[in-house]
Order: sequence, then C-alpha cells, then structure tokens
Amino acid sequence: MSKYQERTVNSERIFEGKVITLQVDEVELPNGNLSKREIVRHPGAVAVIAVTPEDKMVLVRQFRKPLEKTILEIPAGKLEKGEAPIDCAKRELIEETGYRATDMKHVSSFYTSPGFADELIHIYEATGLTAGEAKPDHDEFVDLVEVTWDEANGYIQSGDIIDAKTVFAVYYWKNQQLTKEG
Amino acid sequence: MSKYQERTVNSERIFEGKVITLQVDEVELPNGNLSKREIVRHPGAVAVIAVTPEDKMVLVRQFRKPLEKTILEIPAGKLEKGEAPIDCAKRELIEETGYRATDMKHVSSFYTSPGFADELIHIYEATGLTAGEAKPDHDEFVDLVEVTWDEANGYIQSGDIIDAKTVFAVYYWKNQQLTKEG
Repeated sequence: MSKYQERTVNSERIFEGKVITLQVDEVELPNGNLSKREIVRHPGAVAVIAVTPEDKMVLVRQFRKPLEKTILEIPAGKLEKGEAPIDCAKRELIEETGYRATDMKHVSSFYTSPGFADELIHIYEATGLTAGEAKPDHDEFVDLVEVTWDEANGYIQSGDIIDAKTVFAVYYWKNQQLTKEG
Repeated sequence: MSKYQERTVNSERIFEGKVITLQVDEVELPNGNLSKREIVRHPGAVAVIAVTPEDKMVLVRQFRKPLEKTILEIPAGKLEKGEAPIDCAKRELIEETGYRATDMKHVSSFYTSPGFADELIHIYEATGLTAGEAKPDHDEFVDLVEVTWDEANGYIQSGDIIDAKTVFAVYYWKNQQLTKEG
C-alpha cells in the first residue's frame, strides 16, 4: 500500500526537547511536486482502562498546559526508553492511582494524530484491581477520581472528559456492557 | 478544577509552520518548582463517520509521512481560518470522497494528545449519503475505500486502521449496531 509514498528530499531537525522533537521534511509528492511536512516525533505512550469491582472507571484529574485546563483522563504515561508497553501500563497505573492489576490485556494501539505526529498510544485493560497508595512522579500532580458509566457520560457532556484515549475508553466500556447484555 | 494550574513564567516561540507552531513554556508547578512544557499549537480538525446505504463505512487510503506508511482513515481535514466545524466536515467529505450528506450530526470532540498538543478534533456522523465525484486538493492523494464492519475489524487487526479517530469510529459504529439490536 505505498502507491502515494512521499520520498524525502531533505530533512531538517528544528528542535530536540525533553518529550518531543520537531523536524521539517521536504518531500517529493506522487505528482513530482515538492512539499514540506512538519513532523513531531514522540516516544509513544500507554493508557489504562481500569474498572473497579464496584463498576467504576478509574480516572485522574490533571492540569494540561497545552489546553490551559484541568481534565479527567484514564491513567497514562510516556514510554521510557526500552520499556515494554505492558510494563509501562502496570507502572503508570500504580504511580498515578495506586491500583495494582492481576491482569493487563492489550485492547488497541493507535496513532493520536498521524497528520503531524508519530505518537503511538497503546491501550490496555486492567482487571483484578486492588487499591494501594499512589506514587506520582516528583513533579506530577494528579487526583484519583472514580466514576460510574453515567458519571463518565456526564463528564463527556460537560467537557471534563475530552481527550481521544478517554472518550475511546468510555465507548469501549459501553460496548463491553452492551455485549454482555446482548 | 484549577487546583494544579501551572503559571507561565516565560514562553518562547520555537517554530511557526504551515500547519503547526511550537512553543516552549517555562511554568511554575503547584509545589513552586519550575519546569518546561513543549507545546504544539494546531488549528483543529474535523473527521466524518459516514456509512453508506449499503452499510459500508467510507474510508480514505492515504500516505502519512510521520508514520512512513499508508493507512485507512475516516475522511478528515484541518479547519480553515474562521471555518465552522460542520462546514469543514461537509467540505472534507465531498473533497475526499465525493459523497454528499443530507444530515451531519456532531458525535464528539476530543483533544488528540493533550500532553503536548492543543489539536481538537470534531467528529461528525454523516447520513443520507449520495455518491459524486471527489475533488481532492491539488497536492492531496487519497483513494476511496468502502468497508463492511467485519472488514473494518480486519483492518484494525492488520494495522491498516491505526489512528485514534478511525478506531473510535469503528467502535462507535459497533455501539450503534449493538444499541439497535438490544
């Protein structure tokens, strides 16, 4: 499936940060024209769908500087260098919420924004949860929030849940429920 | 919900491109420490869930330079300056697929990657589709692909469908079907 491949003519590194790097590639289009692609490189991330034995989804409330607001998200974090996604999922769940899971199942992996970024996020479903003490990073400030499915939908309506992985998680949860009922 | 707000101490514009801009903000954390936030600004986007009268989802096959591969996505595009999301949804559906819709319903809006970007994508559901001629931009190369729900799931398994909005769309579609059956 590479009929429309864009050959790189030149690649310029613009910025190398703690989290992302930015490059601008000059490419040759299928019609021979030249164009530029602005590309953000990201180490990748994991996120965890975790529903407690009381049928509540585990979320974290967190300030997001790019949005200048505080939103509710499923627990998530960036992959460390060489870290397996499933290990990252277990680590982030404990660090951000204190919950430990007996099982961690891969649900889906998707690119968050394939037009300009290579960030790939791996979504896991954690089951067999037992509560414990959260261990956030030194400079990480998150609050644990547990919500019913109705509350989750209310937070989608209010815009408190408003990021791709968490909206996906709520729909995934609903699908699981509908499948059980059906 | 702004307990953990991060005050901007300094903001540096690193890059201003055709699509994105990059800035690095120095922020004061809730504990008084200073940290840096790498922030990508994006104009926002729309994407369209469109299922034909033959119960096939309308997708486009497109090369994505950040991934160096060709993937299948629901029709989508960036908001033009001052453009209403619903108008952008109608425009992108026609440009990329030729389909016109009698109805365009808002389904969800979400930030694709709130940790480092402010891209907000608005998802619409198009109904009452009639086929027509696609009108891609001069430098846009996409193929129309129509898939059944089983095919869509096969493409998720194979990794041809692997971006947030399209994986969400397939789950949304399934959700609709389960709700109808239930």
